[in-house]
Amino acid sequence: MTTIVDELTTRLGAAQVLCDAESLRTHRRDAWVLSELDDLEQVAVAAPACVVRPRSVEDVVTLVNLCRESGTALIPSGLLSGVCGGVLAGTGSVVLDLSSLASVRSIDTHDLIGRFDAGVRGSDAEQRVNTEGLTLGHFPQSIELSSVGGWVATRAAGQFSTGYGNIEDLLLGLEAVLPDGSVYRSKDAPRASAGPDLRHLLLGSEGTLGVITGVNLALRRIPEARACVAYYIPDMPAGFEAQRQILQSGWNPVVLRQYDAREVGRLFGKFRQGNACLLLVVHEGPQLKVGAERAATEELVLGAGGSVAPAEATEHWFAERNRVPTFKSFLESGVIVDTIEVAAPYSSIGQLYDAAIGALGKIDGIWNGSAHSSHAYRTGINLYFSFAVQPKRKQDLREAYRSCWRAVIEASLGAGGTISHHHGIGRVRRDWLEAELGAGGFAALRQLKSAFDPRGIMNPGVLLPARD
Amino acid sequence: MTTIVDELTTRLGAAQVLCDAESLRTHRRDAWVLSELDDLEQVAVAAPACVVRPRSVEDVVTLVNLCRESGTALIPSGLLSGVCGGVLAGTGSVVLDLSSLASVRSIDTHDLIGRFDAGVRGSDAEQRVNTEGLTLGHFPQSIELSSVGGWVATRAAGQFSTGYGNIEDLLLGLEAVLPDGSVYRSKDAPRASAGPDLRHLLLGSEGTLGVITGVNLALRRIPEARACVAYYIPDMPAGFEAQRQILQSGWNPVVLRQYDAREVGRLFGKFRQGNACLLLVVHEGPQLKVGAERAATEELVLGAGGSVAPAEATEHWFAERNRVPTFKSFLESGVIVDTIEVAAPYSSIGQLYDAAIGALGKIDGIWNGSAHSSHAYRTGINLYFSFAVQPKRKQDLREAYRSCWRAVIEASLGAGGTISHHHGIGRVRRDWLEAELGAGGFAALRQLKSAFDPRGIMNPGVLLPARD
Repeated sequence: MTTIVDELTTRLGAAQVLCDAESLRTHRRDAWVLSELDDLEQVAVAAPACVVRPRSVEDVVTLVNLCRESGTALIPSGLLSGVCGGVLAGTGSVVLDLSSLASVRSIDTHDLIGRFDAGVRGSDAEQRVNTEGLTLGHFPQSIELSSVGGWVATRAAGQFSTGYGNIEDLLLGLEAVLPDGSVYRSKDAPRASAGPDLRHLLLGSEGTLGVITGVNLALRRIPEARACVAYYIPDMPAGFEAQRQILQSGWNPVVLRQYDAREVGRLFGKFRQGNACLLLVVHEGPQLKVGAERAATEELVLGAGGSVAPAEATEHWFAERNRVPTFKSFLESGVIVDTIEVAAPYSSIGQLYDAAIGALGKIDGIWNGSAHSSHAYRTGINLYFSFAVQPKRKQDLREAYRSCWRAVIEASLGAGGTISHHHGIGRVRRDWLEAELGAGGFAALRQLKSAFDPRGIMNPGVLLPARD
Repeated sequence: MTTIVDELTTRLGAAQVLCDAESLRTHRRDAWVLSELDDLEQVAVAAPACVVRPRSVEDVVTLVNLCRESGTALIPSGLLSGVCGGVLAGTGSVVLDLSSLASVRSIDTHDLIGRFDAGVRGSDAEQRVNTEGLTLGHFPQSIELSSVGGWVATRAAGQFSTGYGNIEDLLLGLEAVLPDGSVYRSKDAPRASAGPDLRHLLLGSEGTLGVITGVNLALRRIPEARACVAYYIPDMPAGFEAQRQILQSGWNPVVLRQYDAREVGRLFGKFRQGNACLLLVVHEGPQLKVGAERAATEELVLGAGGSVAPAEATEHWFAERNRVPTFKSFLESGVIVDTIEVAAPYSSIGQLYDAAIGALGKIDGIWNGSAHSSHAYRTGINLYFSFAVQPKRKQDLREAYRSCWRAVIEASLGAGGTISHHHGIGRVRRDWLEAELGAGGFAALRQLKSAFDPRGIMNPGVLLPARD
């Protein structure tokens, strides 16, 4: 019997189909802390059949067709920086490693369009457009670890999203191989009213509805001016109110980040002032706008009870902003840490914060439960919770972890908030997706999945439970 | 045999089910000029079985279920201001008149969320939020004739979209009855990464994938300041370049409208200056921003070869902007007129303009072929063509009309442009939708339709051809 590996090797070439133990081990999962824990504890883990590194979109089509015809699970992956278990290859599955498609296709300096293979590393894309005086305007903390295709697949948000929008606002064109083997290529026109916007089938689909192979982004010119400013805020509600006033007044600083007193102590110890919270602000744009916006913002923050803090606090964040902590050393000392981002309207964000921090505080062995906001909108704002918990026994790490997740997600749902702001669903949030979308929305998602991937081969177990 | 009308009357009450000739006549179609022409020429037209005016979302569910079970075509309609044939009820079909659901559900002045029944008239919604010091920020020319649900169903754009975004940017939450009778209600949270954004199944679906019953919009505070400014521009390319420079520099005037010389003569005769084009600009926002943006914009426009024109030109447009011309008097004198909006990247918009105007000029009996831009983006811009054609014989009106459409759409497709910017597809653009979406995208749209509406009852003949 010819196996899928044989068939792939014949069709794509041996160099494209990796079966060595090291390749299987390093490509089988993303950076989800529970997967890290499995590896650390040498839990018997599933092994995919192979890792495929395509040379072209045509290779991806060949792969998708072979997997569909043979009923083989196909796990699209980028640079594996996801933290929700969106990549976790089961036994016998095929991992599609899109990092082999990493060409910058073109940079259009007139229309401000950057066209990239899906596997291009974010920081490579940014550096490349920088040489033309342009910027992506999209700066996830993971920019050095994640791919442009991954950004689209997970509906990512960057640190400058308050001013520049999230990935769905920056995405102009999309190329994707659908589960039936057809290739969808949207236009690079700025806007259309031509039926449902099909790009949104793939945005956030996390590999379950197709394989994103090309990403065209609307770029920006590198702004003329930037100003980093910081404020002390007496408490979280006062800071939420200040941010609401700023955005509802028609200003849009590119960055608004508000840290609670715990995080100020942990991350900004040098700038600590009693129990004050910190609000970091970055203004960018034409010099005239930056000056006007900075003055207006300061007036609103002071009016909400804030006071000017050293700008070095914001500059410190700016310099350190892409440092991604690793989970491993914590796990080795019996502590499990993670972050959970949610969002809610302004009127309930205070309730959400209090409920989540309160519930985290009641968990046995909790070291830290804290939060900051990092993405603000006219109607509401996100919160990015961090937790660290050390159960008495190492074998209770997973249960302690689940308890922390339940604490935050249930607090968010109870306050009318979302279960995710920008990390996505993967496996860690899967059981709450029905509560997020409602019965009607969840049924619609199932219908989408059945229609586009009737054999259920595309990243099974992500968003929806895998079929039996 | 019980008919669908009997069943609807029993279930919903006689007052909700209209069968009189006048109701059938006035509700059977939108404002598409070819439908107007059919009426005028007393072409034998199809008659729907009835018009249903629901009192509640539950009534809509009942109706959708009865139509699905009986295989009856269901034609959702709002205020019938569409101009693409999106509503054209066939014989035996049921027209769903959503104008009976016209309550303002709530206005949240803290979170800036307006919640509306789908049938609320745009100008009523705007006036209601105005009383709270708020605005929708969405001003289609049809605002007095169209419903908030219609805006979502057609992916509408307003006159202030350059600053405030299109309907997809303003839509926060959505309520819709899906063809299987389930109700989808999205959250009002500002943003989530929780799978594909299901609101985009309905945005632009034009009644083919479900019935939009509720629309929650992210509002704005009425801005502190407004400035109306006008410039002369030597020709269309110079104006496109000025707009590109303005938006790519990081400014965002709420309105940028550029009229070619023909339209200046026709619509702004008093302000005409040789063959110059007119660029109308409206700045809105905090006073400080308006001042800075106005100064920077002026510098860029003058740098692109423009000169200051009387601000009265923009004020004149502002005062007259919601006057919607009627087709009937033209048709009676043997002239057919229409508008066609498309969009393209900056690098090809000049080619698109020249090709479309050139092709229109070659059509027998053409009176006018002209255009203005009205929605600008960082990467490209729209064009809104107007044509008037008078064939030698009245019986050739339809063919002359089709020739004008072909001229513009083929010019747009040839230049990499879209087939629509914001009016939608309806019937008039249906034959070009495959060219717009590409083979892969068009197949995906068909899959969506089959999955959500397997019996093909939802607005058959719109977006896709009706089944045999």
